Amino acid sequence: MERHFDRDLNLLKEKLITMAGLTESNIQLSVKILVERNETSHGLISQQEQKINALQVEIDNFCLKLLALHQPVAFDLRFITSAMRISAELERIGDQAVNITQSALELIKQPLLKPLVDIPKMAALVQSMVKDSLDSFVRQDSVLARDILKRDDQIDNYKEQIFRELLTFMLQDPTTISRALQLILISRHLERIADHSTNIAEDVVYLVEGIDIRHHSEENR
Amino acid sequence: MERHFDRDLNLLKEKLITMAGLTESNIQLSVKILVERNETSHGLISQQEQKINALQVEIDNFCLKLLALHQPVAFDLRFITSAMRISAELERIGDQAVNITQSALELIKQPLLKPLVDIPKMAALVQSMVKDSLDSFVRQDSVLARDILKRDDQIDNYKEQIFRELLTFMLQDPTTISRALQLILISRHLERIADHSTNIAEDVVYLVEGIDIRHHSEENR
Repeated sequence: MERHFDRDLNLLKEKLITMAGLTESNIQLSVKILVERNETSHGLISQQEQKINALQVEIDNFCLKLLALHQPVAFDLRFITSAMRISAELERIGDQAVNITQSALELIKQPLLKPLVDIPKMAALVQSMVKDSLDSFVRQDSVLARDILKRDDQIDNYKEQIFRELLTFMLQDPTTISRALQLILISRHLERIADHSTNIAEDVVYLVEGIDIRHHSEENR
Repeated sequence: MERHFDRDLNLLKEKLITMAGLTESNIQLSVKILVERNETSHGLISQQEQKINALQVEIDNFCLKLLALHQPVAFDLRFITSAMRISAELERIGDQAVNITQSALELIKQPLLKPLVDIPKMAALVQSMVKDSLDSFVRQDSVLARDILKRDDQIDNYKEQIFRELLTFMLQDPTTISRALQLILISRHLERIADHSTNIAEDVVYLVEGIDIRHHSEENR
């Protein structure tokens, strides 16, 4: 029985890793449309989004099965309920990648507002947060999870910097308003992806250390 | 044992109802700051936000206890995992109310851009969605849950209408840009609250009807 359960837990981890890989790929592809001004990846993003959604349902059902079948307690119970939460976070990250794609497809129909510098950097940081949050869960590595929480300050800085810069563009030249708005919205979608990664990281800290840091101040982190 | 479990399930429902009441109140108070241009409610919002956060942790721990202690299967198992998800949604709704509060506090320092019409209407609709989503869960009423899903189209209409109107303001008078941007962001926060209510409603349909409608098209709703 125990060996069977271990095998199932590994299968659960594999499903989550697959799902995380697809969401990371979709973030990268959505930003690529924007940066390279080329919509070729659009089809692949839609295909991968469907797989992400299907995986969430599959993981949820699998977790319910594990709970009913093995009736786990303590760590194993928390591991499975965390997995359910994490798959929900990954699904929402996928939704944000779709939102970025839609904004990007709108933007590349219009002339380039400015060379993009901060958004690709912010996107790379966000991607690292998604990747590491899942790695921290799979390896039960709360040190890595806490490192992700620290990166959230950089995300806030990017968000503020992008907002201020684009506001200046809008004020100086009203013909840029609509494009600048889209870029601001893209930075907000990236911020939300970072939030979801932070939620995953907080779950991992709770799982591994038993400390609930969700609503505490930075000093507890 | 069974009666004990029923008592615990009722206690769980009560905790969720309390949490939902606080989040509804915070949405209302945050929009009130904006509409009445009066920041008096700010302190109460912060207090209630702390209670919301504490309740999420409390509900999570209570659900884990119920899972470990009673080892429920079938409907009861899904009910408890849904409750965990719903408390996470309510907590995020609370976060959005705080975001609205921050934007509102910024906005009321500056002259009124225009009389607010659509944002209060959108906020009222959003509040009804939060309230009904929780009611649908407590009463296990999937008809009400499906009705919430339908309201999402109206939310999209408000969002588009608010965006277009404020874009026009910005284009006609660049001195309105910064205020118009804050109002656009507020409408996006409201949209996210509607999303969270929709997530709750989808969970209720799954719980009651056993049909997973999360990633299907409107026709399945």
